[in-house]
Amino acid sequence: MLRFPEHQVAGHKAIEGKLGPLIDDYGNFYKPLQSKGRGSNEVACYKFFNSDPRVPNNISQRYFPIFHGTKVLNASDGSGLHPHLVLEDVVSCYSNPSVIDVKIGSRTWYPESSDAYISKCLKKDRESSSIALGFRISGLKFVSSSFKEDDSLSDCSLSWQPDKEFLQNLSSEDVNLVLSKFVSCNIPSNDSASPRPDRAFVNKVFGGSNGILEQLLELKQWFEVQTIYHFYSSSVLMVCERDSLMNGKSSSGGAVVKLIDFAHVVDAKGSIDHNFLGGLCSLIKFISDILDSPPDYDDNCISNANNGIKDEL
Amino acid sequence: MLRFPEHQVAGHKAIEGKLGPLIDDYGNFYKPLQSKGRGSNEVACYKFFNSDPRVPNNISQRYFPIFHGTKVLNASDGSGLHPHLVLEDVVSCYSNPSVIDVKIGSRTWYPESSDAYISKCLKKDRESSSIALGFRISGLKFVSSSFKEDDSLSDCSLSWQPDKEFLQNLSSEDVNLVLSKFVSCNIPSNDSASPRPDRAFVNKVFGGSNGILEQLLELKQWFEVQTIYHFYSSSVLMVCERDSLMNGKSSSGGAVVKLIDFAHVVDAKGSIDHNFLGGLCSLIKFISDILDSPPDYDDNCISNANNGIKDEL
Repeated sequence: MLRFPEHQVAGHKAIEGKLGPLIDDYGNFYKPLQSKGRGSNEVACYKFFNSDPRVPNNISQRYFPIFHGTKVLNASDGSGLHPHLVLEDVVSCYSNPSVIDVKIGSRTWYPESSDAYISKCLKKDRESSSIALGFRISGLKFVSSSFKEDDSLSDCSLSWQPDKEFLQNLSSEDVNLVLSKFVSCNIPSNDSASPRPDRAFVNKVFGGSNGILEQLLELKQWFEVQTIYHFYSSSVLMVCERDSLMNGKSSSGGAVVKLIDFAHVVDAKGSIDHNFLGGLCSLIKFISDILDSPPDYDDNCISNANNGIKDEL
Repeated sequence: MLRFPEHQVAGHKAIEGKLGPLIDDYGNFYKPLQSKGRGSNEVACYKFFNSDPRVPNNISQRYFPIFHGTKVLNASDGSGLHPHLVLEDVVSCYSNPSVIDVKIGSRTWYPESSDAYISKCLKKDRESSSIALGFRISGLKFVSSSFKEDDSLSDCSLSWQPDKEFLQNLSSEDVNLVLSKFVSCNIPSNDSASPRPDRAFVNKVFGGSNGILEQLLELKQWFEVQTIYHFYSSSVLMVCERDSLMNGKSSSGGAVVKLIDFAHVVDAKGSIDHNFLGGLCSLIKFISDILDSPPDYDDNCISNANNGIKDEL
């Protein structure tokens, strides 16, 4: 039984009769091959990542979704049979994952792109934060069954998934706020009057030897030397589970980083991917800054989380 | 007595009645303020670099030319009085400096640039190696009074200063070759039949605790965290003196790195300069690779150099 991946936050979506990815109950993510050679390029990339001895195991196994080949399936748009990549569904092992998709690089086009493609990408890069910050947040969904409710807010939903307009052109301050909310236990909201993010989970999710910062730094180390591929329009996906942090079932909330979307990966032609590396370093700086900021805990929330952790110990 | 700086390898030049920089006998470099606010922007930047406590001393003192204020002088183009920046002439202490000017960043325009300026810069970035490699070599002059002569070459000049066309759009292999020639003692040449660069001075110029690689890595460390300025169209200038290596007067050839050209430095608005950092990391990778390549010495040349060093010791 294939269904729409409810935790997908960016990219083409299989809703309202459109062509998009599907998932099954066995942890597989079926991504339709894109047109104009982009799909076959993505397949070729996944094959290389899995077999190219120049990609170290710590990188390919930890940061790339597992690739299980391709399969022809009925497309989500009802158009009939369509080839799909069969990938690991990287959020299948979470109950309520919080996900943030960051498209890395200030430039999403590559040297060989056509003038028309360059114009299209350049417009998007300029209208988003890509040019200024070296990345843009393409989508996010922060979920929790136990967000602390704030009586002053009438709409106390249990998840926050701002629309495209909200994410369109975030400033440095906006990005700091969004990334802070990712590691906070008070209810996130677009409302500027909403309480300041408490960053209750910052050390557990961003910090530590298995935290997101360490994972990004490991990726960075590879990008400083790899001259195999340039990753245009690829994303870093960051995932964690608040509930397991709140109830103490996990000390890191399963915080992981994955590299996704390889339709525009090209041959490096002998130089490092300075465009991706620059953007990655920019993201790393934001996350380091949030980790280094003085804590601003919410007492109730953090004591709940700490009690849980104590029970576990 | 002001004169044309013979070791200037890029930028506007004070020749054939044009407006360009001048030098004196006291180690000063007089750079005419550029029009359209670029000159005053550069003055403001130099003032900041010298006084802003957020710029660490090891960076401002080691990598920025000293700024001595501004002075109104007779312009080199004969147009009369014109304001000039008074800067340290960073090559004044060398007899025969070899110089390479690398404009860092795949993008030379900034978020606030006009559409016309973006089009102009984008064209240059695409027609050079900037987009592909994250930097372009803007100019170079490799000088020696003792280049080893090769009988097969009829034109055995004592310096190599390729023209703009040669430098226009270098590939990875070309950049590797040019940077290798910078640290070689056989005669460099545009001729593809010329002998392979011997990299005789690679460890002395690129390597070591005071070498160019260490200096670039120190700069990189700062660019990973500084959120004060973004440096568009700025260059890293690398200088060394072959003669002092050949005759053993110096063990490093006075290898230095300087950051120059600040007409397009802008406020960082809270993020690191991912564009400059990416390009700098790309240059660093080229230099590391040349350092890590197996040696390909020319016996005569290196024994001369070694004898010299021994004499010194």
